[in-house]
Amino acid sequence: MAMNLRQTVAEIGEFELIALIAQRLRDPAIAQVAVGIGDDSAVVSAQGGQVVACLDMLTQGVHFRLDWSSANDIGRKAAAANLADIFAMGASPTALLVGLAVPGQTTVAWVLEFADGLREEASSVGVTVVGGDIVRADSISISVSALGELGNAKPILRSGAKPGDVLAVAGQLGFSAAGLLMLSRGFRSPRVLVGAHRVPTPPYELAHAGLKATSMIDISDGLVSDLTHVASASNVVVNIDSSLLEIPEPLSSAAGAFNGDALEWILTGGEDHAFAATFSNALDVPAGWVIVGSVSAGSPAVLVDGLPHASSGWDHFKS
Amino acid sequence: MAMNLRQTVAEIGEFELIALIAQRLRDPAIAQVAVGIGDDSAVVSAQGGQVVACLDMLTQGVHFRLDWSSANDIGRKAAAANLADIFAMGASPTALLVGLAVPGQTTVAWVLEFADGLREEASSVGVTVVGGDIVRADSISISVSALGELGNAKPILRSGAKPGDVLAVAGQLGFSAAGLLMLSRGFRSPRVLVGAHRVPTPPYELAHAGLKATSMIDISDGLVSDLTHVASASNVVVNIDSSLLEIPEPLSSAAGAFNGDALEWILTGGEDHAFAATFSNALDVPAGWVIVGSVSAGSPAVLVDGLPHASSGWDHFKS
Repeated sequence: MAMNLRQTVAEIGEFELIALIAQRLRDPAIAQVAVGIGDDSAVVSAQGGQVVACLDMLTQGVHFRLDWSSANDIGRKAAAANLADIFAMGASPTALLVGLAVPGQTTVAWVLEFADGLREEASSVGVTVVGGDIVRADSISISVSALGELGNAKPILRSGAKPGDVLAVAGQLGFSAAGLLMLSRGFRSPRVLVGAHRVPTPPYELAHAGLKATSMIDISDGLVSDLTHVASASNVVVNIDSSLLEIPEPLSSAAGAFNGDALEWILTGGEDHAFAATFSNALDVPAGWVIVGSVSAGSPAVLVDGLPHASSGWDHFKS
Repeated sequence: MAMNLRQTVAEIGEFELIALIAQRLRDPAIAQVAVGIGDDSAVVSAQGGQVVACLDMLTQGVHFRLDWSSANDIGRKAAAANLADIFAMGASPTALLVGLAVPGQTTVAWVLEFADGLREEASSVGVTVVGGDIVRADSISISVSALGELGNAKPILRSGAKPGDVLAVAGQLGFSAAGLLMLSRGFRSPRVLVGAHRVPTPPYELAHAGLKATSMIDISDGLVSDLTHVASASNVVVNIDSSLLEIPEPLSSAAGAFNGDALEWILTGGEDHAFAATFSNALDVPAGWVIVGSVSAGSPAVLVDGLPHASSGWDHFKS
């Protein structure tokens, strides 16, 4: 279809837009999709007879800004946030479904670049977009549902942490929060931080199926905030030893330059989509994971160096 | 939790709101949910080793208006639109995931009434909400993903219609379009039409698993418009015989009173979530379905009484 990508979605209409998106999302290498885009629903593999499923929304001005992130960035971020939730269950992702609400004056180019971002992130873990919806709205909102399968494995829940377990994390922490601060102060660098805010890089390969974790969670709101859910669900105290939290160079430099607190970014910064997990034995912690604390008995709480931590992380409505 | 439901979501915050919603959605009678609300993802039955999944978005001002529909209506409609897409595959629904983007000043009461509507519609087909997301936005947008299972059945696709098949429909057609017209002219009656626009009533029980249809589709955009997808996917001509389309009394009365065209509402009105299906033998058409046409060979098209039909149905961006 030869067309002018500067056309708006209102000009080309819903059905031609869907055809263009479907073309852009096509990935013939994906074996687990029996029915993809183009029917009332998709049909996807669910080995083991159970499906793992989650849904996240991202809204313009809250989760992304069009002047800070490209359409490709936003597509990747929307996919990554949901894929991380599948891996955090000890499951393997199988597919994404995507809803996109956009104003009529949005360009076709923007929508297709968004689809490219979705496809790129999804194909990095061997999945594709199998369905969804595109509708009109006053501002952009995005909804992604990710599906996964467990095969013969049991899901790794938030509720499985036991006193005596070790606590470990995989992936970057605090990078997205630091990057957001840079952007909000009008800077576009350092790229490693700003880029981490635009497109998180969950360490998918470290949350692989077969992980011997007793509990696991995707860190989306902040380490302390998300571990509070593990503490409550498992009825334990989760102890973070801040001396075990390595402060990487980009964070310490940025903290120095911006009078920030790198440790605070690591403890409370959201949207990195790192993983935190508990293991009954330190020997079960695979390479790539870093032990940063332990689990003990007591009323549910998260303690940093033995003390409750003041900041409670991101609240969508109170922030 | 004793609380004032006139509080806004900004006042109580995300985490307390989620706890209240989860409480409201709890339905302990649902057996197929291994992990529901409260972890990174849900885990739900997918008998037969495949999952059927779809996702629809509804946005304020486009799919619903707060002065025309209650929060309960909107919850029911959001659930129904997606459940119909699962039934239209010949599958049985197993769960819903729901994303809700709302302004901070939305009352807690509104959100919980919306959750009630979701629960009521979902429980009518034996499922519940197993996960989702709630975020802040300038206007309300809703995203629902429905999951289903096929057991040993094959999915009923849009692509299976064959020349010689009969065409049949199940459920109301044109009621929602007529109801929308009443509302847009400032009327709140007749209730059977206005109610059909507020809360569609897909005839779920008529699209049960085991249906011997060769193709099936949920009628969301309009009969002619949606059958165009069947014609294209199956590479056939779908013929509607308008003399077989019964015009129910509420539609003929409303058409008389409003100088409308009842047949046109039936052919092009969207959002009723009736079903259209093709059957290789008229004897396969179950009670409750009405034969309204046939399938023949030829370049893909939908013909009404042998002629192409002018109106192309609903386009989210061009309308």
